[in-house]
Amino acid sequence: MNFSSRLLENAVNEFSRLPGIGSKTALRLVLHLLNQDKEEVSRFTESIQRLKEEIQFCIVCKNISDSPKCSICANPKRNQALICVVEDTRDVMAIENTGQFQGLYHVLGGLISPMEGIGPQDLNIESLKIRLMEQPVQELIFALSATMEGDTTLFYLHKKLKDLSPVISTLAKGIAFGGELEYVDELTLGRSILTRVPYESSLIK
Amino acid sequence: MNFSSRLLENAVNEFSRLPGIGSKTALRLVLHLLNQDKEEVSRFTESIQRLKEEIQFCIVCKNISDSPKCSICANPKRNQALICVVEDTRDVMAIENTGQFQGLYHVLGGLISPMEGIGPQDLNIESLKIRLMEQPVQELIFALSATMEGDTTLFYLHKKLKDLSPVISTLAKGIAFGGELEYVDELTLGRSILTRVPYESSLIK
Repeated sequence: MNFSSRLLENAVNEFSRLPGIGSKTALRLVLHLLNQDKEEVSRFTESIQRLKEEIQFCIVCKNISDSPKCSICANPKRNQALICVVEDTRDVMAIENTGQFQGLYHVLGGLISPMEGIGPQDLNIESLKIRLMEQPVQELIFALSATMEGDTTLFYLHKKLKDLSPVISTLAKGIAFGGELEYVDELTLGRSILTRVPYESSLIK
Repeated sequence: MNFSSRLLENAVNEFSRLPGIGSKTALRLVLHLLNQDKEEVSRFTESIQRLKEEIQFCIVCKNISDSPKCSICANPKRNQALICVVEDTRDVMAIENTGQFQGLYHVLGGLISPMEGIGPQDLNIESLKIRLMEQPVQELIFALSATMEGDTTLFYLHKKLKDLSPVISTLAKGIAFGGELEYVDELTLGRSILTRVPYESSLIK
């Protein structure tokens, strides 16, 4: 692109480094910000700076938090004997949005991915092990993505932690609610037939 | 969304105000920035702050510039007798990228849009009139979008400026180069037949 200003070019380049933002979108966003009041632009940049400088990670579950202990871990009404292991804070938000889970979480901070050079030592696995030893649980739920990285991580975690919880479970796999059968991918549909369940137990209690 | 942190929520809300960025994309961008080094995040926010605080608009053509006079207006090799009137700096960049125009520009800073409450007084039209009176040109080219706002602005500009330039022209309209006929919209195709040109003059010189 032929920029008439180096300041503009700089800002567009910085925006282009964000995931999923190409140079045309970056230019549109930067010109939008340039049209805003000075106060609004300051509020935008300050919200990012403050987040980066003041954010904490919960000492118990490693989730993003404003305080040393996050609001979920600090809530005495949550079931302390149930820990759901997830990849990152987005998964905590997704599960919380369902309103179906009353236990605690543990945020790994990623998945094992040899392709990207992420090994077990880069994830919050040791802290989970110590947590389980210090405060035993009844059930450990692995809620990881159904991808190769998710499965690799699941395999590693199960091997490492299987003696620390009486029950270890993962998310149910199958066709989505509301999904039309003809659009379901072959692998999911095939496995759903193999792992079919009795009609009575398929009803939501 | 159920945020575990108010700092996170703030940053996501600020990102969501950008055009075309929904809350899920905003969350993804914010978490990406949170994973970057402190220096990289500072570079990102500073590039925006500096742009907002130090940017100037060329005193001649009103384009975004780092100096009082932009590099195009300051270039003595450009044809001073040719002014191309465009909506904003993106259009200047688009035309510069073609390499087909050697004249100067005038950036209106928008289009007349009664729907959005933008009138002629909100655009750089008066400065264009003064510019044309002080330094007469041979041709004035209106390169505006072929939308209702573009046509309204074109109509207004023509009425206001028609005595200030011997030639007033607009961009050629018709089917795009490389476009397949069956996919061209009816209006464009119909007008292209009505405004057909002799074969010889259609060849690019």
